[in-house]
Amino acid sequence: MAATAATANIGVVGLAVMGSNLARNLASREGNTVAVFNRTWSKTETLITEHPEAGFVASEEIDDFVASLQQPRTAIIMVKAGAGTDAVINELADRFEPGDIIVDGGNALFTDTIRREKALRERGLNFVGAGISGGEEGALLGPSIMPGGSAQAWETLGPILKSIAAVAEGEPCVTHIGTDGAGHFVKMIHNGIEYADMQLIAEAYDLIRRGTGKSPAEIAEVFAEWNRGELESYLIEITAEVLRQVDAETGKPLVDVILDQAGAKGTGAWTVKSALDLGIPVSGIAEAVFARSLSSKPAQRAAASDLPGPAEAWTVDDADAFIEDVRKALFASKIVAYSQGFDEIVAGAEEYGWDIHKGEVAKIWRGGCIIRAQFLNRITDAYAADPGLVALLTAPYFRDALTESQEAWRRVVVAAAQAGIPSPAFSSSLAYYDGLRADRLPAALVQGQRDFFGAHTYQRVDKDGIFHTLWSGDRTEIETDGPSH
Amino acid sequence: MAATAATANIGVVGLAVMGSNLARNLASREGNTVAVFNRTWSKTETLITEHPEAGFVASEEIDDFVASLQQPRTAIIMVKAGAGTDAVINELADRFEPGDIIVDGGNALFTDTIRREKALRERGLNFVGAGISGGEEGALLGPSIMPGGSAQAWETLGPILKSIAAVAEGEPCVTHIGTDGAGHFVKMIHNGIEYADMQLIAEAYDLIRRGTGKSPAEIAEVFAEWNRGELESYLIEITAEVLRQVDAETGKPLVDVILDQAGAKGTGAWTVKSALDLGIPVSGIAEAVFARSLSSKPAQRAAASDLPGPAEAWTVDDADAFIEDVRKALFASKIVAYSQGFDEIVAGAEEYGWDIHKGEVAKIWRGGCIIRAQFLNRITDAYAADPGLVALLTAPYFRDALTESQEAWRRVVVAAAQAGIPSPAFSSSLAYYDGLRADRLPAALVQGQRDFFGAHTYQRVDKDGIFHTLWSGDRTEIETDGPSH
Repeated sequence: MAATAATANIGVVGLAVMGSNLARNLASREGNTVAVFNRTWSKTETLITEHPEAGFVASEEIDDFVASLQQPRTAIIMVKAGAGTDAVINELADRFEPGDIIVDGGNALFTDTIRREKALRERGLNFVGAGISGGEEGALLGPSIMPGGSAQAWETLGPILKSIAAVAEGEPCVTHIGTDGAGHFVKMIHNGIEYADMQLIAEAYDLIRRGTGKSPAEIAEVFAEWNRGELESYLIEITAEVLRQVDAETGKPLVDVILDQAGAKGTGAWTVKSALDLGIPVSGIAEAVFARSLSSKPAQRAAASDLPGPAEAWTVDDADAFIEDVRKALFASKIVAYSQGFDEIVAGAEEYGWDIHKGEVAKIWRGGCIIRAQFLNRITDAYAADPGLVALLTAPYFRDALTESQEAWRRVVVAAAQAGIPSPAFSSSLAYYDGLRADRLPAALVQGQRDFFGAHTYQRVDKDGIFHTLWSGDRTEIETDGPSH
Repeated sequence: MAATAATANIGVVGLAVMGSNLARNLASREGNTVAVFNRTWSKTETLITEHPEAGFVASEEIDDFVASLQQPRTAIIMVKAGAGTDAVINELADRFEPGDIIVDGGNALFTDTIRREKALRERGLNFVGAGISGGEEGALLGPSIMPGGSAQAWETLGPILKSIAAVAEGEPCVTHIGTDGAGHFVKMIHNGIEYADMQLIAEAYDLIRRGTGKSPAEIAEVFAEWNRGELESYLIEITAEVLRQVDAETGKPLVDVILDQAGAKGTGAWTVKSALDLGIPVSGIAEAVFARSLSSKPAQRAAASDLPGPAEAWTVDDADAFIEDVRKALFASKIVAYSQGFDEIVAGAEEYGWDIHKGEVAKIWRGGCIIRAQFLNRITDAYAADPGLVALLTAPYFRDALTESQEAWRRVVVAAAQAGIPSPAFSSSLAYYDGLRADRLPAALVQGQRDFFGAHTYQRVDKDGIFHTLWSGDRTEIETDGPSH
């Protein structure tokens, strides 16, 4: 049963669905011999029994698993993120030798990855946190992979990961994102953008349905149509599939049978928390995370259900024109969400010392991952044309798209507010757009209030320096060397 | 110079403006003798020289400071929150004896307070994290105080804190919030609500100014008028003061001379991060935090400044009617912000095991603190009438106010979107209101998408259980025992 000869060039630890599928993907590629290990042997047994074609090298004991790996030993850990990850890492680290490579392919928080990489580097080991996107099917057929870690580890790991990654327009969807936690950081942002994208699609569906009275099946056709244009993306495609689905039991559209409480696994909240640390406004992503948590408060929703809405019923005069407005609002809001996400990548790279190529990130998101979308090519183009782009939405393609969409976007936000239909992500994205382009913001008043109650000082538009008005004194202005506390 | 007899019943460590003012406040109350200590003697010297009337017991060495305190020794630390706090706490803890009390009166993160309280409790010491609000003036004349810590510590500390706190309608603005970090947690939420309140006021000012063409001085009169009604509060009052102020150098309104980049000290971001951990949608507070960070991105704002807005210029036909709409929008949005903040208090109390009396919290915010507002009494009433209230905005008073305001609120959000004026907090609050009262949310579609790409499962509206559609198979539905990963 146990393998003691070093015959495998790569190993996988943790054989739940994601791990099993990734192992099968690895085994299917020319030149790979894959060692597998799982804490419970029965899972390993099932995998090797069901997939003899993979030629797995299976071990019941971790010592044998380690012995089955050629040097430099390379093992990908696919276990649920959390405390368990540290235990598995330590079990391998205790048995690995300098130069060996441990890859965490789970959804770890990037600061944990930074911590783990540092600890293992001090022991001479390579630790690579790799974000893997595309779900179970992606793991099996080709995911988008976002590895961090050292350049040295990438030398060994790169060819293996390239062989199993999704391919988009001829290029494998994997690139070395940056050192230590950079890969998990970028994967986190990917998921944050996904939250926003999904919420925007949900708002678009809701507005069309309530505004035009079209059925989910009819709206599925709208999304299918949109998927042939600039909105083309995996999420638009599967939205059509979900809306088309009929519940066998009731004969109703499935979307009307599903309880309207959306769950979350935490990466959206991480994205917002990290953005708060970095001082980056990711309002679209935050509204999407909050929309899910609001939906999951049945007691509050029940208590609020008789709060009044608009007196007048809402009707859309021209359904086709409204749907086209919603399409534009969706596209414009989506540009905002991506722009905010890439701002966070830029800020994170600066804060944590990563040299992240934004255009490459957009490229590897084209295939295998949940947000894969036509317009990721436009993001790659934008950063190729101007690597120092200060905000994605100011690049020519996006600027043109926003210019072309903004009036329709306003009409949609107006309709939602008038009709009493919640559109937190649409309206927040528009407010962000209008805030960023404003010549003058009322932040000046906020700063004046702060100076009044807390002597937090202010700057002036007409000269350098830090100033404070003696509000509780004679109200003259003094120059100061900073806030008093 | 040094005092060695134990003559003081309370001590203050850290004599910057807040600490000095708090020490003077303490010394001014009957029966208190106040020991003071600062790392740099010169600050202590200045304080005792300028305020001989206080009768401070001053020490140059920390050993003497500790010796000057009667038992149980009680010392309030007023130093900048952060690593320095731990150092000062340890210096005291090393010299204090079981039963003595160390109070941290700075703006510590509540999780740090929980950690510190636990460590000191294990050494037999009482540690109390106390949020103190009201700025420099509040510290001197009467702050709102939010102490956590043990009931035992409150026995000694309560009378002292009651003697120095602000008084509102005959009651001192201090109450024992709960154990360990409860005080700093509630102070954090207080500050988060303050962010939202300030942003809402700023949006109201901006809309009125752009919509009616009124000058800041004229708008100051609007706020002064509002301060005589249901919006009466410290922030409305000082907004009038700030808008009235004329810059001596240029003769312009000060608000036009202040650089429109608002700073932040972090408690707003903490409130949002904690809400994300607790799963509470605090969208109004988040939008306020993000509005400040957006304002402080001059390079992005410059790059985005020529993005287009609405083609048509905006004019308000009836200025008085519009101003009244804005007043109602402000009141309604403010109710949402407070409701979200109190939701977070309820969730935090449950998560961290605190028995927090929401009505008492609202009561102590009536005096001495930045958000002190007329309608805090209505919050106290609401929780008195129904201690288990599931959402503040569903209490009768707030329900009536929202019912009366919602049409005006919609008109304001519509006007802002049409006119291209950023109103992230107004529009987000309205979206939250419409989301909470919605009979059905498109969260069902989100959950369908999640089931499609990640097998995250869903619940049904018509029966219990957890379900999954075999999307990549024959698309039948199966019952399952939970998400596959």
